[in-house]
Amino acid sequence: MTLSGTSGAAADYSIPTGFPARHMGPTATSSQTMLDALGYESLSALVEAAVPSSIRQGAPLNLPPALSESATLEALRRYASQNQVKTQMIGQGFYGSHTPSVILRNVLENPAWYTAYTPYQPEISQGRLEALLNYQTMVADLTGLDIANASLLDEASAVAEAILLMRRANKKLAQAKVVVDADIFPQTRAVIAGRAEAVGIELEFVDLAADGLPEGEICGVVLQQPGNSGAVRDQRELISQAKERGALVTVAADLLALTLITPPGEQGADIAVGSSQRFGVPLFFGGPHAAFMAVCSGLQRQLPGRLVGVSKDAEGRPSYRLALQTREQHIRREKATSNICTAQALLAVAASMYGVYHGPEGLAQIARRVHTQARALAEVLGGAGHQLVSASFFDTVQVRMPDAEAAEVVLAKAEGAGINLRRVDAATIGVSTDETTTTREMYLLAYAFGLVEKPSQAAELYDRVEFEGEYAFVDELIRESEYMTHPVFHAVRSETQMMRYLRKLADRDLALDRTMIPLGSCTMKLNAATEMEAISWPEFAGIHPYAPEHQTAGWRALIEDLQNKLAEVTGYAAVSIQPNAGSQGEYAGLLAIRQYHLANDDAARDICLIPASAHGTNASSAVLAGLQVAVVATAEDGTIDLADLDAKIGAHPDRIAAIMITYPSTHGVYESDVREVCKRVHDAGGQVYIDGANLNALVGLAQPGEFGGDVSHLNLHKTFCIPHGGGGPGVGPVAVAEHLVEFLPGSPAAASLSDAPAPVTSTAYGSAGVLPISWAYLAMMGAEGLTSATAHALLSANYIAARLKDYYPTLYTGENGLVAHECILDLRELTKASGITAEDVCKRLIDYGFHAPTLAFPVAGTLMVEPTESEDIAEIERFIEAMIAVHAEIQQVIDGEHDAANSPLKHAPHPAAVVTADAWDRAYTRQQAAYPVPGLNGAGFAPDKYFPPVSRIDGAHGDRNLVCSCPAPEAFEVR
Amino acid sequence: MTLSGTSGAAADYSIPTGFPARHMGPTATSSQTMLDALGYESLSALVEAAVPSSIRQGAPLNLPPALSESATLEALRRYASQNQVKTQMIGQGFYGSHTPSVILRNVLENPAWYTAYTPYQPEISQGRLEALLNYQTMVADLTGLDIANASLLDEASAVAEAILLMRRANKKLAQAKVVVDADIFPQTRAVIAGRAEAVGIELEFVDLAADGLPEGEICGVVLQQPGNSGAVRDQRELISQAKERGALVTVAADLLALTLITPPGEQGADIAVGSSQRFGVPLFFGGPHAAFMAVCSGLQRQLPGRLVGVSKDAEGRPSYRLALQTREQHIRREKATSNICTAQALLAVAASMYGVYHGPEGLAQIARRVHTQARALAEVLGGAGHQLVSASFFDTVQVRMPDAEAAEVVLAKAEGAGINLRRVDAATIGVSTDETTTTREMYLLAYAFGLVEKPSQAAELYDRVEFEGEYAFVDELIRESEYMTHPVFHAVRSETQMMRYLRKLADRDLALDRTMIPLGSCTMKLNAATEMEAISWPEFAGIHPYAPEHQTAGWRALIEDLQNKLAEVTGYAAVSIQPNAGSQGEYAGLLAIRQYHLANDDAARDICLIPASAHGTNASSAVLAGLQVAVVATAEDGTIDLADLDAKIGAHPDRIAAIMITYPSTHGVYESDVREVCKRVHDAGGQVYIDGANLNALVGLAQPGEFGGDVSHLNLHKTFCIPHGGGGPGVGPVAVAEHLVEFLPGSPAAASLSDAPAPVTSTAYGSAGVLPISWAYLAMMGAEGLTSATAHALLSANYIAARLKDYYPTLYTGENGLVAHECILDLRELTKASGITAEDVCKRLIDYGFHAPTLAFPVAGTLMVEPTESEDIAEIERFIEAMIAVHAEIQQVIDGEHDAANSPLKHAPHPAAVVTADAWDRAYTRQQAAYPVPGLNGAGFAPDKYFPPVSRIDGAHGDRNLVCSCPAPEAFEVR
Repeated sequence: MTLSGTSGAAADYSIPTGFPARHMGPTATSSQTMLDALGYESLSALVEAAVPSSIRQGAPLNLPPALSESATLEALRRYASQNQVKTQMIGQGFYGSHTPSVILRNVLENPAWYTAYTPYQPEISQGRLEALLNYQTMVADLTGLDIANASLLDEASAVAEAILLMRRANKKLAQAKVVVDADIFPQTRAVIAGRAEAVGIELEFVDLAADGLPEGEICGVVLQQPGNSGAVRDQRELISQAKERGALVTVAADLLALTLITPPGEQGADIAVGSSQRFGVPLFFGGPHAAFMAVCSGLQRQLPGRLVGVSKDAEGRPSYRLALQTREQHIRREKATSNICTAQALLAVAASMYGVYHGPEGLAQIARRVHTQARALAEVLGGAGHQLVSASFFDTVQVRMPDAEAAEVVLAKAEGAGINLRRVDAATIGVSTDETTTTREMYLLAYAFGLVEKPSQAAELYDRVEFEGEYAFVDELIRESEYMTHPVFHAVRSETQMMRYLRKLADRDLALDRTMIPLGSCTMKLNAATEMEAISWPEFAGIHPYAPEHQTAGWRALIEDLQNKLAEVTGYAAVSIQPNAGSQGEYAGLLAIRQYHLANDDAARDICLIPASAHGTNASSAVLAGLQVAVVATAEDGTIDLADLDAKIGAHPDRIAAIMITYPSTHGVYESDVREVCKRVHDAGGQVYIDGANLNALVGLAQPGEFGGDVSHLNLHKTFCIPHGGGGPGVGPVAVAEHLVEFLPGSPAAASLSDAPAPVTSTAYGSAGVLPISWAYLAMMGAEGLTSATAHALLSANYIAARLKDYYPTLYTGENGLVAHECILDLRELTKASGITAEDVCKRLIDYGFHAPTLAFPVAGTLMVEPTESEDIAEIERFIEAMIAVHAEIQQVIDGEHDAANSPLKHAPHPAAVVTADAWDRAYTRQQAAYPVPGLNGAGFAPDKYFPPVSRIDGAHGDRNLVCSCPAPEAFEVR
Repeated sequence: MTLSGTSGAAADYSIPTGFPARHMGPTATSSQTMLDALGYESLSALVEAAVPSSIRQGAPLNLPPALSESATLEALRRYASQNQVKTQMIGQGFYGSHTPSVILRNVLENPAWYTAYTPYQPEISQGRLEALLNYQTMVADLTGLDIANASLLDEASAVAEAILLMRRANKKLAQAKVVVDADIFPQTRAVIAGRAEAVGIELEFVDLAADGLPEGEICGVVLQQPGNSGAVRDQRELISQAKERGALVTVAADLLALTLITPPGEQGADIAVGSSQRFGVPLFFGGPHAAFMAVCSGLQRQLPGRLVGVSKDAEGRPSYRLALQTREQHIRREKATSNICTAQALLAVAASMYGVYHGPEGLAQIARRVHTQARALAEVLGGAGHQLVSASFFDTVQVRMPDAEAAEVVLAKAEGAGINLRRVDAATIGVSTDETTTTREMYLLAYAFGLVEKPSQAAELYDRVEFEGEYAFVDELIRESEYMTHPVFHAVRSETQMMRYLRKLADRDLALDRTMIPLGSCTMKLNAATEMEAISWPEFAGIHPYAPEHQTAGWRALIEDLQNKLAEVTGYAAVSIQPNAGSQGEYAGLLAIRQYHLANDDAARDICLIPASAHGTNASSAVLAGLQVAVVATAEDGTIDLADLDAKIGAHPDRIAAIMITYPSTHGVYESDVREVCKRVHDAGGQVYIDGANLNALVGLAQPGEFGGDVSHLNLHKTFCIPHGGGGPGVGPVAVAEHLVEFLPGSPAAASLSDAPAPVTSTAYGSAGVLPISWAYLAMMGAEGLTSATAHALLSANYIAARLKDYYPTLYTGENGLVAHECILDLRELTKASGITAEDVCKRLIDYGFHAPTLAFPVAGTLMVEPTESEDIAEIERFIEAMIAVHAEIQQVIDGEHDAANSPLKHAPHPAAVVTADAWDRAYTRQQAAYPVPGLNGAGFAPDKYFPPVSRIDGAHGDRNLVCSCPAPEAFEVR
């Protein structure tokens, strides 16, 4: 007899019991229904027909047996218990902070926020767009600059982006060097060194405070405020000199310090970057946190990352949408301002809500308390004869101990008392106070530094302290300008208000908690609650990225296990989870290839072949890795044109560094000659980069590392269940074959000390904080669950393609007329006949309660649909019904029943305010506008109809009249 | 210098920084605005004028300094760490269960669910009403009976309710005894013994399996299935005999077992009760859990507790609302079917969602696994010569050890291995398997019972087991009937579906996360996320109520501290938090009074004086405590009529047991002669019971225990921040003066062994699981915060009364024309002039996005408004604006502009389906219907308008055509 009652091995791709059956939408019954419709007897017959045998993997994935949800939580608790939670006073860009519980619960733990997609469909994204606009406004105000973007990935890579921006914007001096102040965080130094080297920018690190600007032409200057040493400096003179010499100036700054210190913009800087982590975001062992970039007016078209702007809708309502999208990688490809797409939207939302909740007076109060604590510490240390590295500071006091041994003693006593300090160098200790610092820690510090025998004796010590001057920096630096004056930063002070504000914003948006998001290439699958649960546990969330190794055994064991499992899934030798977005993974992967060629004395290999159908990010990443892009044509049937491939290889003998392909292709098809493509590139001496964006069609069926890839990046936020968060966090691990392992990104800590490859992010493990999500997914699915999921993703995509084929032909199919995990619906003939575009259909689907499919990628005039394995048949049928109904509406236009311009399609979407207006002069009825299919129909019970808050938004108007911070409240007044 | 930066002592009721400023809506600025409008210089001047000096407390509350939110979480973690989480195999009505993470996150941790009020306003409660109807359907199906209610408090008190029901329904034999099978849980025995004694019901405990029914007239019989011993019996013969003799029959049953066993209804029982805890609800150290009661057709009008039924709305849509409300205590007072009002709605929702998620096949699978594990254990124990108490069982195996010492050894070995077993008596051990039991525990059990040297050796032991027969009970008991056949139990199997179902239902409702809920006497204040955070920690949620004391030190320390603080707040000598609802607190308090009189040989004191304005629950609780009710008249001005009080006392010399008063009175006024009232009752030898419903007007200003009370019950779900959960959980601690301490409810464990007073619930600490909420509230507010909150609650209520006085006069005021924390708006003149009723106004407020105030209590034709201290001035102004706009609409009717019948008020509320209908023949515009004030107006930006899913619901129709389980899907079809 069996005691456990769980079922045995599942054969034939059937759904294992337990979590896999919860993760997946289809059931045995509904799968059979879909198979019947497709004319396949079994799922394995379908897989056999759809997936070329040439790429299929021989053996099942070698993963441990699947765990139940509760066993997974237990396993995570075991990892957690191996981490030690200390009071983190290491600083160095990462600070303790209180995440307000109301924000933790209602944003970071609320699927309405975390399952949302990037706000490319602005009409159903007004809530999160408002939150991000608040973020931009807050950052612009605090930095004293004109325009801030809606987040970057981490401070170090943000500095790298600023350097690239300065080079783009400063065309005259684009070839000149960039001067970087030596008083910059070491992790920033390590990251920008690597990035600059890749694209051939000369960096010169100079102690600017001591030595001033160096000789020679200077493209840009990078400063930090406060510096790595903690010093707070008046940078006006330096900035002014730099600008006189034609350079642009970037300041990496601490947002909390800027509530007290004259901001970079007012000191003359052109650009400010930094991290907003300490605005209520947990340490997360290094990430995810939202970095920021703000620029002065004139540089906005050079801004990397996403930018929210204000525009208006069809009835003139002010409304938000992404601005200046033509800067972005998916439009400009290798000419884009950056390769960044996914940033840190969810964390930017959390940080902005922290700003909304505290307001400027609350932030200043926190800053003053932090500063006072640091001053008190400096006073008692100085009083006891300790040598301080800098007399000026905001929150960080560095102490030069007599020798390494003395430093050891202090560090050990502090750790024994539960406090981590920073070891700056052998004999130098750094202490950073923060929002969480209390009197208790102050006493313990006095004890750790040997000022008192017992912590309690420190009270007297501090009582005696008297300060001279208002702050521990020069009076000229005291901030006098106002910030965060917009009413939104003054309206919310009680928790009830914050809870309602968050609910109100969330209600304006459509996320996975209300509808499928059938986005081709974006894989919007379930983000299970069990997967999400561990990320806010203090034992994971409360760990500093530079905490001593012996305190982080649990984190490192979990990460190592995750990396190993990802290597098994992809068939590669090793995986680094450091890259904190897909774009960073691409960059890291291409850099590994480039380093490999360099190591082989093959420096001439500088061309990256990219198929015409590739995602734009591929091209921009290649440029950042120092490669030139050569486009390979796509054949009639969507596959790579082998003749053109040969021609491109032939045209550049010995210069082929790599090819970047996506598999299955961005056309949603398994190309059967992928091995041949790989072979020809390999034969030409190139490496094969397989973009993992479509890995959801491969897991358990085929391994890119096995069928020809040398490198892939994965998107944990696609295939491995990290939620999209409205545009981040993402994680983009890079997986490589054996010969490239040595070129994986190094640790920022190690980089400065060794020959290890440059890191791509500020911390060794990137967005570590969200890795338990993917770990849990893999643990709960097991090999069978993962493989079954892939098969069901294929099944659902093919079912949709088949059901819709008489209405919208599928553009590309593979050998047996089948697609992979997504299908491209071709609307071009319909558009020609009716004037109704694919975009109109996207907007009209909102009225049916759906998020739109992917629009116009990879082919203009089409929609790409990916249902994933998580959608159940009822939701799939609801989508099919909506698409057929929309087709009928298009047919009405073709048949002349409606003028296109007056059709519900062109007027879509329809907010409640429109369909309840007293006057109605449309050519169609209110019912057709709002309740086009019975499922939405108000005559039924509890219709659960979603109304968008605005009508169609005029994006061009917003780009012509760029407003990227919160508009005055009058703009929203009822007219 | 001060290091911490937190402010010093707050004087003058000003709001302390930190959490109190987050808990409260008003700020210093907005408080001043309100004070200016009221003509008071300061908050203390207002308090001085409003609160009679005769009752004011002399000194501030003696509570420790307030903690920050993070320090509070740390303190809770310290308590948590003092509890030991073991695998709980004690059983006895409480079983391990997996709470699906998707339900934990999206129900128990989602304010949209937990901050909702009782669904008395059905149009904005359709979501939770559907969830509760699912619960009723599931329970009715599983028990094989016709109608189930929407939850009771706990299994033991549910059995007590069943006994009272049998007496009510069995009029002919109402005076006869009730026979209870001896094989019933000891806690049930303890609770019903106390309840029966109080109302003079004779209980006879009989070993019915051995001895059969006793002689004499029998009103009712109570059985348990499976029994306390674990035995599963065919009860048909016994039930049939009982019914032949005119008795009604109740079976306390285990819902999970009923998936396999012929249910009570099919065996002939009239009533089934039990707990739904093991359907996904954590152990919570004993509660809260939803109990249930199901009855056969004919008894539905006798059902205690709330009952959801199906009716239709104004356009004929099927819709849900509470049915047969005339049974309830707020209508029938001392003649009610029960004193229960708050039950366990949130837990019933969780349990019903567990049923929806698993479906009947999933539940049966869990039950079979649990049963198989118990059988396997029984087999190996029996094989080793152990003596089993019962050969039949479902999940519980009891083993009679040779002696107490042998039992000790097994218990200790089990505990050492991390498993708690039940010590049934000195030498008997009970083991209950459950959903969480795995092979690992099975091995450890074999080890603990000494069958193997090492757990791993147990594998072989179990492998050898072979079962005879299908189940460990007679074949005649194998369930053959279907259950949970309704589509709702078959539609949701994936987590995505469950997440969306929960969101869809939540979106239909209005809770505190979207609007103020200005309910007089219900105190709907903030339920802060920090307060809620700890309740799902395993160290609190995973503890069995009967776990050994040394494992629960943290729980008991927290509870003791909470009880002490509540005693300080109320001015009493001691507090028991055992009562798990306000009604239970009332009962426990009155019982203490009764016991006190009995102990004083004052048995004749059996009259409870109750003012006419009292809440109905007071009267029904008095009856349950064995008292007779005498009503004291209310004077013109709303105060207690002292002359009538004297008259009533005089009429019953030496029979006055107590007076029950509410303070401030239910009229929302501080009566200045309360001390006099107390004195007169005391002089007459009676005790004073002060209902704590309005304690939010007293905390920090006056202590009922000081100004005359001998007993009070509190509502932690009102004043102390436990969320209402859509109708429970509640906690109703009872606070008593020194002379009554010995009569506080005893522990169910101790009761059978000693002379301790009877317990009122199944476990010593009632709804322990939610107590960290109130503990955190008290810790974070501190004495100053609590007192400031009270003052601000007064301020806001008086501000509303003043702002609305020209539109809706306030019915009762105190000495300076001021109200306490709530105000009664008198609509009777308006109704006379217009035909528009207070109920119409309630429904119309929905169109303005508000939950209605309290309707028709304590005075018909009025609305009672309580803003609480948590509402900010913007929300208060929004409410005032709405009320004034509604007044204008009423004026339109009075002025003849609208016919009342065709006014927006009579047609309210207006669902989207109505205002978007193609045809519109109303006398008012669509805009007036849906967007009557600019804040809601669709012409503005992102209107965030709430549309109710249904129009006005016809309650009477539902009562005439009673349907209390899920209707067929066809009922909802679009017509």
